[in-house]
Amino acid sequence: MDKLQELETLLAEVADLAKAEAVLGWDQQTFMPPGGAPARALQSSLLSRLLHEKFTSERVGHLIDDLSAEMADLPYADDTAALLRVLKRDYAKALRLPAAFVGELSHASGLATTAWAQARAANDWHAFEPHLARMLELKQRQAEYIGYTTRQYDALLDDYEPDMPTSQVAKIFDAVRQELVPLVQAIQAETQRVDDAVLHRTYDGAKQWALAHDALRAIGYDFERGRMDHAPHPFCISFSNHDVRVTNRVLPNLFSSCLYSALHEGGHALYEQGSPDKFERTALSGGASLGVHESQSRLWENLVGRSRAFWEFFFPKFKKTFRKNAADMDAEKMYRAVNKAQPSFIRVEADEVTYSLHIMLRFEAENLLLENKLRVSELPTWWDEAMSSYLGITPPDVARGALQDVHWSMGLYGYFPTYSLGTFFSAQLFEQARKELGDLDAQFARGDFQTLRAWLQTKIYQHGRKFTLNELALQITGEPLQTRSYLAYLKKKYSELYGL
Amino acid sequence: MDKLQELETLLAEVADLAKAEAVLGWDQQTFMPPGGAPARALQSSLLSRLLHEKFTSERVGHLIDDLSAEMADLPYADDTAALLRVLKRDYAKALRLPAAFVGELSHASGLATTAWAQARAANDWHAFEPHLARMLELKQRQAEYIGYTTRQYDALLDDYEPDMPTSQVAKIFDAVRQELVPLVQAIQAETQRVDDAVLHRTYDGAKQWALAHDALRAIGYDFERGRMDHAPHPFCISFSNHDVRVTNRVLPNLFSSCLYSALHEGGHALYEQGSPDKFERTALSGGASLGVHESQSRLWENLVGRSRAFWEFFFPKFKKTFRKNAADMDAEKMYRAVNKAQPSFIRVEADEVTYSLHIMLRFEAENLLLENKLRVSELPTWWDEAMSSYLGITPPDVARGALQDVHWSMGLYGYFPTYSLGTFFSAQLFEQARKELGDLDAQFARGDFQTLRAWLQTKIYQHGRKFTLNELALQITGEPLQTRSYLAYLKKKYSELYGL
Repeated sequence: MDKLQELETLLAEVADLAKAEAVLGWDQQTFMPPGGAPARALQSSLLSRLLHEKFTSERVGHLIDDLSAEMADLPYADDTAALLRVLKRDYAKALRLPAAFVGELSHASGLATTAWAQARAANDWHAFEPHLARMLELKQRQAEYIGYTTRQYDALLDDYEPDMPTSQVAKIFDAVRQELVPLVQAIQAETQRVDDAVLHRTYDGAKQWALAHDALRAIGYDFERGRMDHAPHPFCISFSNHDVRVTNRVLPNLFSSCLYSALHEGGHALYEQGSPDKFERTALSGGASLGVHESQSRLWENLVGRSRAFWEFFFPKFKKTFRKNAADMDAEKMYRAVNKAQPSFIRVEADEVTYSLHIMLRFEAENLLLENKLRVSELPTWWDEAMSSYLGITPPDVARGALQDVHWSMGLYGYFPTYSLGTFFSAQLFEQARKELGDLDAQFARGDFQTLRAWLQTKIYQHGRKFTLNELALQITGEPLQTRSYLAYLKKKYSELYGL
Repeated sequence: MDKLQELETLLAEVADLAKAEAVLGWDQQTFMPPGGAPARALQSSLLSRLLHEKFTSERVGHLIDDLSAEMADLPYADDTAALLRVLKRDYAKALRLPAAFVGELSHASGLATTAWAQARAANDWHAFEPHLARMLELKQRQAEYIGYTTRQYDALLDDYEPDMPTSQVAKIFDAVRQELVPLVQAIQAETQRVDDAVLHRTYDGAKQWALAHDALRAIGYDFERGRMDHAPHPFCISFSNHDVRVTNRVLPNLFSSCLYSALHEGGHALYEQGSPDKFERTALSGGASLGVHESQSRLWENLVGRSRAFWEFFFPKFKKTFRKNAADMDAEKMYRAVNKAQPSFIRVEADEVTYSLHIMLRFEAENLLLENKLRVSELPTWWDEAMSSYLGITPPDVARGALQDVHWSMGLYGYFPTYSLGTFFSAQLFEQARKELGDLDAQFARGDFQTLRAWLQTKIYQHGRKFTLNELALQITGEPLQTRSYLAYLKKKYSELYGL
């Protein structure tokens, strides 16, 4: 047990450094004045380097190896077994990337992100091309350093969704796409059936903010262990399971933005606030993967927040806050308004039905680019054709096409699929919750979200990083990730909404 | 030059760690939710320990020694000479305190601070006694570790006011006290001559906040390189010379609090924002000492902000913001109101005239306690007698007497005098500025504070930590710290205000 204590002590410092760096990052995106940027970059990169040095020390490696051998007989679900399993994976990866390469990647990504922002503003693909090409080359090298059996993409995806093979994602995406494309077309033909004009009226910012607080409180977000601040982009960040913060923004003429961002980030935050104390300052704290995390945010945003029952509960609050805008509305009308589905160019503005098609397109593009089957210069045309084939629309310019996302310039390849994997998993989970928890709609309609949250605590939150997405799916629902529940949910809901 | 570069590189990391820890501290005092405290303590103390390890490494010591020898011929005012001088002092001190002792001190001070807060709330000196005794014992040991020639107090004071002997402070304080006590008595006899009722009307918080922003902008605080946030106690903190933040609070029934805290912290912030780029990430960045820093905050708060000329400039803004409260006022009346002087129990609420008497009392108490000439149990009685003798009033309870300050429980012994040294120095500086800059009052009255700020930039800010208070005083005014200017300023101003 002495070796385990030594390892835990060493890694507690690694965890503390990661959280300290997170505080610096949070401040940078919320309150930091413009002048603070250059010094902050130095401070953050120092913490990041110290963290890497501490984690990749030889002693840590020896301890992981020794303990893994000594404890090989522990059951798979044992906390210590899971800790060693996760550490072994993290350590091997951290060691495989040479420090010089990490520096190169970080430098190139800094340049590419700046170039991307300028290129998007100027609607100029040509200016971004060399940066995308450079990042691709680096990510190809990264995949080689990390290693893989069949596809480079496996090595990259594994950073965000451990043990999820590219082949499983491809198979799932192919199957879902075949169902989604006709559904989108059918909805398109009946587009006038759902009216979302109410969302585009003028809404006071402070009142929207207060209502977002109400929604967060309702789902059980603990403000004694968190807070919501303004930031250009909504996100959730954790400095410990007792200090989990969200950010949000207010759009005066799009009511749904602030409320649903609160529920989305709130879903992430419930997961992090639910991470058990016993995992604090270890590699097991927090969420299992990006996909599992996204299952939690999507569940609260869409399966709860965009349900009819939610609006039965929430409409009186909405009406009290925005009497004038709500005058000609009721719960049912609001339910319909927040569920309008229609093809659009921008992923982050997409609705529940079309969202995954945006993701699939990116997943295909990433793979084609990485495998040199598509050239960077050909991407915009390829993109427009895919959009036309999946969503029936063609972007008017590259800024609203292949140039819209920041991810690739930041080096995030293999990240996009997790958005959809999480979305599919959320429906699979929710179907199971319905089976086990009785009438969820009745609970939501009276403002009871705690039964569901307590269930998620037991099924998901309490396990921290112990299990993968597929393992959790199997434990909770008896089968690995599937898309049947997701497609059934979408078809039922949207057939009714659009009279299909 | 290679050695110098190596040293600078090593110490840049030390500086970055210190600033990262400062960000964590700022968040803790401004936005952190209650639940975040335990994890934050661990994160901060790790950064603090890493900083200490990096700074006290043998290599740093060798480099300082070697370079000091190699560069012994550099002129005193040379940047590198000053850097090595400051580093030598800092390094020797950091090395003299055993890590175990630092841990002991930090632990005891944590306990004492909690005990102090409870004891003050309960008005219970007895509960605090053992903690104060323990802290005293530790500070006595600290003085022994650090070393001194004649008095333990020298070793402690030196942390806050380098190279300032206790004997100089004692001599200055004795002289000033002899003048202040009769001045306070004379003012007391004419107390009804100044009416500050206007300050106690009701003032909207958001409007006070906006006015404090106006005041900060007027004196030249750069909001592109800083910001003001709410906190229980006003303070100024720097994460680089391009990110210097202040905090403040609003009291709805005491108008002067928010405005003068803004000017006070703004004075600190101008100093930090004025620290030159060339000193960033070195031991020379920031301010020379606590005393010199306080000279800057007091100068803007009192010598500028409590001047008649300031109110000629500021009254129209005040009136525009608070039309009703300002209806029966004018610039002259406001000038008089913000300068009401009268003995009070609480140091942080004291006016310009009585403030230093509060400090002197603490300075004497610290010395008596450290030298075992006064027992902890005897302090409350001693305190009440000193208050009666200096200010003619006796605290109604120990919470408003010897228990009012947090400093001693935090281990801050030798810190109090810097408040007064800074106050004295501010008057000495201001007198010189008047000689060199023409009609300052005319400048202030038309809102021109940049002439004064530019002068301070040249005389004070640009030197960072290169010189001590006495060295700066000598360079700028031709003599070391003196109190003649301070006493002359007080007597002139208050004789006129109170018709003495």
